[in-house]
Amino acid sequence: MAVNLSTPEFLHPVPGVRLGVAEAAIKKPGRKDLLVIALDPGAQVAGVFTRNAFCAAPVQVCRERLGAGIGIRALLVNSGNANAATGQGGIDDARATSAAVAKAIGCDENAVLPFSTGVIGQRLPVDRMRAAAPAAVAAATPDGWLDAMRAIMTTDTVPKGATRRVAISGGHAITVTGIAKGVGMICPDMATMLAFVATDARLTADATRSALVSAAGASFNCVTVDGDTSTNDACMLVATGHGGGAAIDASHPDYAVVLGAITEVCTELAHAVVRDGEGATKFITIEVGGATSEAEARQIAYSVAHSPLVKTAMFASDANWGRIAMAIGKSGVEGLDQGSVSIALDAVQLIERGQPHPSYREELGSAVVAKDEFTIRIGLGRGNAKARVWTCDFSYDYVKINAEYRT
Amino acid sequence: MAVNLSTPEFLHPVPGVRLGVAEAAIKKPGRKDLLVIALDPGAQVAGVFTRNAFCAAPVQVCRERLGAGIGIRALLVNSGNANAATGQGGIDDARATSAAVAKAIGCDENAVLPFSTGVIGQRLPVDRMRAAAPAAVAAATPDGWLDAMRAIMTTDTVPKGATRRVAISGGHAITVTGIAKGVGMICPDMATMLAFVATDARLTADATRSALVSAAGASFNCVTVDGDTSTNDACMLVATGHGGGAAIDASHPDYAVVLGAITEVCTELAHAVVRDGEGATKFITIEVGGATSEAEARQIAYSVAHSPLVKTAMFASDANWGRIAMAIGKSGVEGLDQGSVSIALDAVQLIERGQPHPSYREELGSAVVAKDEFTIRIGLGRGNAKARVWTCDFSYDYVKINAEYRT
Repeated sequence: MAVNLSTPEFLHPVPGVRLGVAEAAIKKPGRKDLLVIALDPGAQVAGVFTRNAFCAAPVQVCRERLGAGIGIRALLVNSGNANAATGQGGIDDARATSAAVAKAIGCDENAVLPFSTGVIGQRLPVDRMRAAAPAAVAAATPDGWLDAMRAIMTTDTVPKGATRRVAISGGHAITVTGIAKGVGMICPDMATMLAFVATDARLTADATRSALVSAAGASFNCVTVDGDTSTNDACMLVATGHGGGAAIDASHPDYAVVLGAITEVCTELAHAVVRDGEGATKFITIEVGGATSEAEARQIAYSVAHSPLVKTAMFASDANWGRIAMAIGKSGVEGLDQGSVSIALDAVQLIERGQPHPSYREELGSAVVAKDEFTIRIGLGRGNAKARVWTCDFSYDYVKINAEYRT
Repeated sequence: MAVNLSTPEFLHPVPGVRLGVAEAAIKKPGRKDLLVIALDPGAQVAGVFTRNAFCAAPVQVCRERLGAGIGIRALLVNSGNANAATGQGGIDDARATSAAVAKAIGCDENAVLPFSTGVIGQRLPVDRMRAAAPAAVAAATPDGWLDAMRAIMTTDTVPKGATRRVAISGGHAITVTGIAKGVGMICPDMATMLAFVATDARLTADATRSALVSAAGASFNCVTVDGDTSTNDACMLVATGHGGGAAIDASHPDYAVVLGAITEVCTELAHAVVRDGEGATKFITIEVGGATSEAEARQIAYSVAHSPLVKTAMFASDANWGRIAMAIGKSGVEGLDQGSVSIALDAVQLIERGQPHPSYREELGSAVVAKDEFTIRIGLGRGNAKARVWTCDFSYDYVKINAEYRT
């Protein structure tokens, strides 16, 4: 029941990137649950990861290997098991499975980054994954994006991909293609559980890193489904450099063009995560303005976006805006004066500087929240900073999905 | 479907306190929705209120009147309408309705404290409430506690009351009786929406205040249903002084006895709020130890207690303890090392200093969470501070209740 989200039918290949899937029967047999993303030598790779202190074993291994400065040659992804809260054994498992990929490719084992998504607290089926790894490597092809997109799904109901081609200087065109998975445990710090974005733009290492931080900040870090931060969240940007033209650092005129395309792909993927949020029936934008800082605006926006009472009212198409006021008030922002706060649903003004708006009638608000996409607009009336987050409602199906996840 | 919660059949009267109810058809006709708690002259009254910046009109009026130092003679409570987010008009309404009670009693209108609970954002039916106020005052009787307990209910499925009698020095015995309402919008800062506790102990003004702060801190401020902080939360303590004996200040030997009884009544009421939490099927205690501070222990406990993923797993009787690890990790506590964290369900050890416990088997955890009351025990392994909070699970019915609240 994803909100206005359809399955991508075409994703541009990215020169220098090949993707292959295989079946390792990680959670159950009969699906391709192992993905290898093979990179040509020389690719720049940057990652941002969950800030959850219980971060998963593969996240710990990724951080270590990215920090070591070896050129990354492959990403190994499995669905069905998160390899989180598995202690030292989980780290050994992440190393052992990625070593099998390194062997099949013929590279240093530290040049393979492991990623896992699925149930927490269970050990990986290492033997089955090692056995399946060569098949995934052998199957790797530039056209593998659509299969890859499906291989990383867990409770996702719609596979998620986005793609762009843009012109840069010198008559070159570059491609940006990304895939993501994630529908629950979605929260501000690295919203999606896993996102892989690749471009053939010739970004420098620093530019790859800064483009990822900027694009993730404007996209994945602005969405929330349930306020729970995954143990496994990771967003990776690969820049293969095969697109031609000069090297692009952050001061190069093409940087803004490439960053724009990366941000568009990340935003489309981030929106897809919310549209496919567990049990979601509505796609809700929350805009907060008039704040003294962007952090304050985000704090208010998330307080509204995380409120179970707001989310259940939105599910019911009930313009119960008092709950929005409640959620603003409980945000913990210091010195907030309710007499300065304004609230609107799309263009319908509800509260104007703390007072009920004289023109407001219940049917006006109801007409807005009956739609499957709308914006909650909040003005704090105490500054010029603003922020925007995207979220979904909270339905019976959220409970159903999460109560029955393992059964 | 409250968890092991039954309707109180008897509450001790408190000399100096009379309670009367009447029908004002605030939300719908046919129920007693207006309560007056009349106090003999000389009663000490203390209150603690929501920290929500969008606090309701009656909360604003209460704070103003309690601050003025006039002896309080009555509390006026209505259910069905929260008089919150109603602007200046709502404050006028709170004053007008409490003035009607003052007139019926024959006291200063500032000696009446107003309280409201129910839907946010709608004006009170002032005329109907003013018309009903004299009947509530006329009906007031020392035996009115059970009727009062029912009059303040909103989505509560079980009325909530608790009562104690304890001996103090000089052959005296004192009574503590309290009632509460609240099942949703329940959060750490003033957990219940409304709680009224009275004693005939001869507490001084300062001792009344300090006893309330202490008792509320150990009870209402340790429970959470959904993490949403109400606009209307209020917990009031009345000490009529009719119980005999000397005046009791905080240094008096009887203070500990009286405080103990007040804390017991508040804790029983706070537990009742969780047991009747919207859609609750389980009563869950979360204990965190080994923290560097109580604040840190509470932060972890609330991170677990508020996690929708933990709460839906508990609803499903699924010992999906990985979600507990996730919620600990996302708490935002600085420098938390997962290698020092231990997790148990009752006496079943799951994680011991970051490693899966060798004796753990799925059926052991499942047997614990299949019960309707159990404890999640978390050790941080970095200090000696601890905290305990009480919460409930998150079920289909939570969504149902909150999606259909106004329909």
